[in-house]
Parts: sequence; C-alpha cells; structure tokens
Amino acid sequence: MTGADALVSTLADHGVTACFANPGTSEMHLVTALDRETRINSVLCLFEGVATGAADGYGRVKGEPAMTLLHLGAGYLNGGANIHNAKRAKTPMVNVIGDHAVDHRKYDAPLNSDIMGLAGPNSIWIKSADSVGATGKLAAEAWAASFGPEPGPVSLILPADSAWTEGGVKGGAARRPSLRQTPPEKIEAAAAAIGRASQPVILINGTALSEEGLGHAARLKKAGIRIITDTFYAKMRRGAGVFAPDRMQYFAEGAMDDLEGSDVMILAGTHKPAAFFAYPGKPSLLVPEGCTVLDLGGADTDSAKTLAALADAMGAHEAAPSAPLDKPDAPTGALDARAVGKSVARHMPENAIVSDDGVSNSMPVFLSTIKAEPHDWMGLTGGAIGQGLPLALGAAVAAPDRKVIALTGDGAGMYTVQALWSMAREQTDVTTVVFVNHTYRILNIELARTGAGNPGPTAKDMLEIGGPDIDWVSLSESMGVPATAVTTAEDFDAAFEDAMKQTGPRLIAAIVPG
Amino acid sequence: MTGADALVSTLADHGVTACFANPGTSEMHLVTALDRETRINSVLCLFEGVATGAADGYGRVKGEPAMTLLHLGAGYLNGGANIHNAKRAKTPMVNVIGDHAVDHRKYDAPLNSDIMGLAGPNSIWIKSADSVGATGKLAAEAWAASFGPEPGPVSLILPADSAWTEGGVKGGAARRPSLRQTPPEKIEAAAAAIGRASQPVILINGTALSEEGLGHAARLKKAGIRIITDTFYAKMRRGAGVFAPDRMQYFAEGAMDDLEGSDVMILAGTHKPAAFFAYPGKPSLLVPEGCTVLDLGGADTDSAKTLAALADAMGAHEAAPSAPLDKPDAPTGALDARAVGKSVARHMPENAIVSDDGVSNSMPVFLSTIKAEPHDWMGLTGGAIGQGLPLALGAAVAAPDRKVIALTGDGAGMYTVQALWSMAREQTDVTTVVFVNHTYRILNIELARTGAGNPGPTAKDMLEIGGPDIDWVSLSESMGVPATAVTTAEDFDAAFEDAMKQTGPRLIAAIVPG
Repeated sequence: MTGADALVSTLADHGVTACFANPGTSEMHLVTALDRETRINSVLCLFEGVATGAADGYGRVKGEPAMTLLHLGAGYLNGGANIHNAKRAKTPMVNVIGDHAVDHRKYDAPLNSDIMGLAGPNSIWIKSADSVGATGKLAAEAWAASFGPEPGPVSLILPADSAWTEGGVKGGAARRPSLRQTPPEKIEAAAAAIGRASQPVILINGTALSEEGLGHAARLKKAGIRIITDTFYAKMRRGAGVFAPDRMQYFAEGAMDDLEGSDVMILAGTHKPAAFFAYPGKPSLLVPEGCTVLDLGGADTDSAKTLAALADAMGAHEAAPSAPLDKPDAPTGALDARAVGKSVARHMPENAIVSDDGVSNSMPVFLSTIKAEPHDWMGLTGGAIGQGLPLALGAAVAAPDRKVIALTGDGAGMYTVQALWSMAREQTDVTTVVFVNHTYRILNIELARTGAGNPGPTAKDMLEIGGPDIDWVSLSESMGVPATAVTTAEDFDAAFEDAMKQTGPRLIAAIVPG
Repeated sequence: MTGADALVSTLADHGVTACFANPGTSEMHLVTALDRETRINSVLCLFEGVATGAADGYGRVKGEPAMTLLHLGAGYLNGGANIHNAKRAKTPMVNVIGDHAVDHRKYDAPLNSDIMGLAGPNSIWIKSADSVGATGKLAAEAWAASFGPEPGPVSLILPADSAWTEGGVKGGAARRPSLRQTPPEKIEAAAAAIGRASQPVILINGTALSEEGLGHAARLKKAGIRIITDTFYAKMRRGAGVFAPDRMQYFAEGAMDDLEGSDVMILAGTHKPAAFFAYPGKPSLLVPEGCTVLDLGGADTDSAKTLAALADAMGAHEAAPSAPLDKPDAPTGALDARAVGKSVARHMPENAIVSDDGVSNSMPVFLSTIKAEPHDWMGLTGGAIGQGLPLALGAAVAAPDRKVIALTGDGAGMYTVQALWSMAREQTDVTTVVFVNHTYRILNIELARTGAGNPGPTAKDMLEIGGPDIDWVSLSESMGVPATAVTTAEDFDAAFEDAMKQTGPRLIAAIVPG
C-alpha cells in the first residue's frame, strides 16, 4: 500500500468516518486512497474554512475526530480561523496537510511555505511524515494526540512522496487518552470552601455540560450553589427536563454585576473567566474582588465526574427541578429575534442540534428554547465568526438522523457561505436561519462601548453591510439550497415549521431590524 | 491624537491611499481614526481573504503598499493565503492586525492567539506596537520595510489599548529603500558567458517585466539570446508594441523539453526555476543538465536595470521588433477558452489590467492577447487559488480610470467570492469572466500526471464541483454585480464587448467544456 493508503486506513481503523476535503495536486494520492477506503465518507468543500469548521462540528457531535484534507500551508491558512475555534472548543480533529515531496521543498516552489511555523500555534500536536514508513504510525499517533489530555486539533503533514510511495504500513491500535479526574483532596477543599461561603458559584464547561454532568450540577444547585456556564462552549445539552444553569454574560460589566457578592468561585472544566475583549476602564478578569477561586481542573478534566464527586462530598443527593416541556404560542407581528426564538422553540424536533453563530441575534433564541424539546447547543468558542454554517454541515454528517439548525448573522454567514454548496451536495438535514439586518450590528454596539467616538460616514460604512443588500435567497439557491425570505413573525413561523417537517438543506432569510 | 490616529495618519503621510478592512471590536478606534483620515479610502470586505488579495492587487498596480485592517490572529488566518500569494509576488503591503489590549492578553480570552507565531512565516517584517508612543514610529518603519530590499507583506500588530490611548505621535518620514543594482563584474561575467554559449537563455521576472525592462530584453533578444519569463509573475506589460518574451511552461516535462540545449541560463529578478509540484520520476529543478546558471540578482534587484546594463555590455543597441496591434476576428460556434481569448483580444481597451486566476483556462486567453491593446497581466504567483477576484478589486481601487478584467475558474472563484460584494459597493470597473466547467479541471489533469491511478467514484466526486452546479448569475447578482451566462462564442463576444463599453462591475459566466 502507498503511504496515503496507510494513513487513511489507519485513521479508518481508529473510527474516523469522515474527511472534509479541499484537495490539490499534492494530495492526489490521498484522494485515490480515500476512494479505496470505503469506511470514510469524503465530503468536498469549496473552501478550507468550510472543511475545518465541518470537522469541528463533527468532532463536537461525535466526540471523536474527523479528518480534513488541506492543500499545503495556504490551504491550512484558509482553514485556520475555524481551527482556532476548534482549538478553543477542545474539539479533537486530525488535519492532514499535504506538502511538497521532501526533496522538492528545497527548491522553494510557489506553494512552498513554513507549514510547521504557520500551523504550529493552533495545533496541539504537529508532525510531518517525511518517510513512507512513518505515515501509518503517525496517523495513529495523531489520532490519539487529538484527545489531549486536553483535546484539540492536530496537524499531520504529508509530503507528496510519502503519500505516493509504496511501502506504507498501517499504524497499530492507539490508546485513546482519558480526561483526568479531579484529585479527591481538591474536591474536599472545594466542598469545605463552599460550606464556608455565603454566595458560592460554580463555573462549568466541558463534560459538565453533558446530560449527565448537568444532572450532577442540578444536585449542587439544589444544595444552594449557583451554577453558571461559560458564555461560549462547544456543546451543551438543554431543553425540557434538563437542568438549565445560568450563562455568564458576554459584556464584562454585566457579568460583574451578575457575579456581585460571590465569595467563592469553583472552576470545573474551565479556567478563570475573562472578558471577551478589553475596554477602556473596564475589568478584564471576571472575578469579583475578594472572591476565592478554586480550580478543579480545566478542559483536560472530566468535569461531569468532578461535579458528581463534589455533590457526593457535600451529601447533595436531590436534584433541583428542571422545567417540563413548554412551547410558546405562535409569534405574531414584526419579525425579530424573539419571534424567531418562539418559532424555534415551537417546532424544533427532539434531539436537534443548534449551531449558533448568530452574534447579536441568537440570545433571544437561546432564552426561548430553555423549555423546548431536548437538544444540543453549540457555540462560538473562539470568537472567529464564520463558524456557524460549516459547523452545522459537519454536525449533520456526524448525525444524519438528527435535525441541525444553523443560526447565523448575515455578516458571519458571508465568511464561509460556500458551506451551503456542500450542504446541498450532501443533502444534509440542515435548516439555516440567517438574521439579515444588513449590518455588523454587534460592532455598532461595540463602537459605543469602546468609546471610539461617534461614527462618521467612513466608520458607519465599515459597519454596514447593506449597499448593496445581499439577496440571501438568490445566494443560497445559486448553491443549490432552497431558500425563502420572510419579514413577518407569521411567515417565519410557517417557513420554519415547514423546514422542521421536511429533511434536507434549506435556508430562511429572517429580515430583522438592524 | 490616539495611537490609532498616529498609525493611520503616518501611513497616509507616506502615500497610503487605501485600506482594505474587515474590522472587529478590537479595531473600533482604528475605524474611527480612518473616519478622520480622509486621504485613505476605506474599503469594507466581507472576508479577510478579499482584503489581503485586494491589497496585493493595489500594491502590484501602484508599486506602493495599501493597508489592510485585520481582526486578531483569526482575521490574519482568513487573509493568510492571499498574503502568501503577495509574499510570492513581492508586493509591498502593510497588514495592520488588531490585538487585545496588552494587559488583556494574559487572560487568554477566546480570540487570543499567538499572532507573532501565525503571521511571522509570511511576513517580511513583524512588530507589535505595545505602547501608544510606538504606533506612529512603527507605522513609518512598517511602510519602509514593505519595500524590502525584497518587497513583501509586513505585519504591524496593534493592541487595542495602544489604539485607544491618547498620546500618539506621528512617525517621521521614512526613506523608501531602493532595489539593488547588479554589480558590474557580474554583468561582465554574464556577458562573457553568453558570448561563449551556443544557446543562452535569460530568465526574467520583477522590474524586467515593465515596459522599460522589456525594451532592454528586446535588445538582448535581437542579440540572439532567448528571453523567457517565469511561469507566474506579479505583473507584466504586454500587448501591441511591447516585446513578448517566451513563458516558462507550467508542467516540468514541457519546460525541460523547451529548455533543451540551453547551455547558459542567466537569472534576472528571479531564482533557479523549479517545477510547481513534484511528480514521481520527474525533475524538480528546471535547468538542463550541464547548463551553467548565473544569478544577476533576485527579487531584491532592479532587473530592468540589470538587463539594460547587460545589453550595454554586449553592445546590443537595436531591439527585436514587437508585434503591431492585430485584433482577431469575432469567434463563432461553441464557447471555449480560445473563443474567450479572441473576444478579450478584440475588445480589451488600452491600458487594461488583467487579473489571471483562470487555472486551466487562462492560457488560451494569454496567448490570444499578445497583439491586443497594451495592458498589464497579473498572475497567480503563490499558487493559492482564490486570488483573482480580490486582486481585481484592489487593482481597480488603485487605478479607477483603468478597465480591470478578472479571469477566474469556477473552483478558484468560489474561494473568495465575497469580493463581488465589495466590487458592487465600490462600483469598481471590473469585468469578471468565470470559466464555468463545474470541475477542478486542473486536478483531473494532475491526477493522471501524478500517477495516482484511475479515479473511482469518490475521487471523481472530489474533483467535480457540479452536483449541484453553481448558478453564477444568481450568485453574482445576489451580491449586487450584474451578471450574464453565455454558452456560445457569439454571445460571449457580445457580452464582453458590452462590458468593455460600460463602466462598473459585471460578471460573465462563460460556460465551457469540463
């Protein structure tokens, strides 16, 4: 077998079932190897940012890595922002980056670049398979490395000659590393600190946001401890019957007001909370003065088990109640994010997956769906907008029997709009809702908050994406995804209900106030 | 003034007239500073790859840097592939990368990343303005650094607090570095080697491709020396009345056949030629065995002056003739790249600028336009497709009185299709021709050449971008660029003629064989 065959079949042996790809000449042997490896579903993406965002979505849903196929350093760069997001989401992902043949590198041909340098900062593991014999072994190593201890994207560079040469050997079965357990003495110290506190709070992320983890969180809540999640997380279980923790507010001053009086903060599956951005004269660290912080382990730790142990240590056996299913009435009148939220809560089927890249418009939908059918919510962990559509694509490939709902702003959606084409090609069951307000609305808010002054005409222009207005129906249909634009709550509700009843990709342009 | 004001006004003092921007929260003070700096035209781009490709186009046309405004490391990554292309084009470009406030970095907020690490490999200069006092001075330094000695993209990181703090000081006038001159003894050695050679060839790039440089090249040609350009270059003057050198063939075996018998190769403004990709059993270095190579200076050298000195040293005073204006007859019948080439040659106005990202279809257009109106041709220097539309946008911003023609494949065009929106917004005079063949045609060719075997269904799927076919007319019009699709040579000719007679953006989808 060739090195490409060894690499691909080793990943398949380890359970990788999808490759999101944008290949070039140096990856032709990988393409034909994928042709022979029927256990891997190859999904063509027209832009690498789609491929990497899709691998992130797949990894969040499956808890195991997908493979991407990227074309040299330039292909890595195109996929880089969504790899940044995946790194922040702690998503296992195996990025296979094709490179020139080893002997060809020294001639510095046009596509040559310092792949190790470019990809290093956002890779938790990076190696180059510079001989055919190394391809299978390194594929197994890469797969295992993607699980951490803190999971994330790994980069496996594959020179073209290592891919095309015969003599590849499959890598042996690699062990999947487990997340760490919080040491018992730390659990005891946290329980004691909580016991002495007047307003204890536990900030959670990671596996604590699974159904199991939230079950333990509900026990701690019942014991009088406030439970709060990070503002953004890779995936959380929520909806009817699931304990709903609070969510850290996005804006620093709101978060600080909200946390006022908290005297003990326990961290489980996360780190000390920091503001998304710095602002003149506003705090960066979101911990009240005098509040004691106890760290029970970050993303390398199984925070669901941490909460279980802590609840056990505190003798907290009963769980706080969770809300029963409660669907709102049909929204009426002018369309806005609240109306969208009601419709989503009304019609979303059980076990749906929401990919949230809706920036300024998604919070009302988030709040509306607390009592909706149980579902998973995936957020923008790394702050690089342009994640929502690719993430939805990958989630749908990972879970073809579940409905996926992508919420995106028009600004965010345009970054990786090519994802629509892959949704059409794969006929993934994704309903995309684009909040069309013809503006980077969040930036208009931020402009005031940063004290940058009143915007003049140039500044205004830089935050408005009208002129020309983007016609999302034409845009979507040009790539094969049926679309409709709506301007009233009634029309949105009907369009969304229809989308939930059918399968396959579709897009609803929700025209909302700017 | 704030640090943002100091940075922006220093760049304006040095002649920067355009900023291609995709701002975020950390750049709000840059946005309002641009509002106050009326000498800089701020162009909003919906994706950073558009901004950086546009700055490349601007720099190639003006010979001076534009500014880009990118949002932290993720914004840099999104713009990274076209920065790679710009680095290969030796285009001066000042990338201003917003960052978190200096004190905020340590909290590792979601958008935090190792910007130095990510941007370093493709920056010829990179610094961070970590105090407000440094902003103006570093802006001047960055501007000067972008000219080299080998020009290219520089990265100036601007933390948000350095931008928002009062106390900025404009940077003093920086000196623009000049390209180097080839030492006289090297010129003499080259002249002597040519004198002894039976088949001398001069490989040229850089300023040798200017009208002046090609004038000197014509003198050397007349003296019996073959003149050949690199396959890809940033910009070349060509058309009626301009000496037309040969062009290095793309495929290694073709290039080697073509160069057979050459016994002396002189390099002027370039380096030893290498194949774009390596192939099993094919050469990487495109120099015939036994051929002596003399290097008269690479991209750091003024190769037009090198050729002048060499021609003087050889007493070559007379120039080889150049072709007079000769426009082909109207094409008829089925539409293909040759027919497109005829129409372009017939209707392209004087002094047009062509941005070529047409991959497998642009060569016939290139060949057809040798005797067309004099024009500039800009190629894909770094091999990262997705350059064509942004490059055309930036060229049109730099030269609003010149017609710009973008040639792109449908595969390449989809990478940075968001450029169409900025063309519409700025009403740039760009006519985009998309070769629509619903396939990565070049990869179908490369699949065979790399010996990767016969494609099975998966491999075929990965190289075809039909299913669904992209509707380029809807896609273009959704972003405000009027468009038409044509399937015959007659219809293309009429559409292209019409586009040349009008101003403003438009797109022609040329449906060609796959």
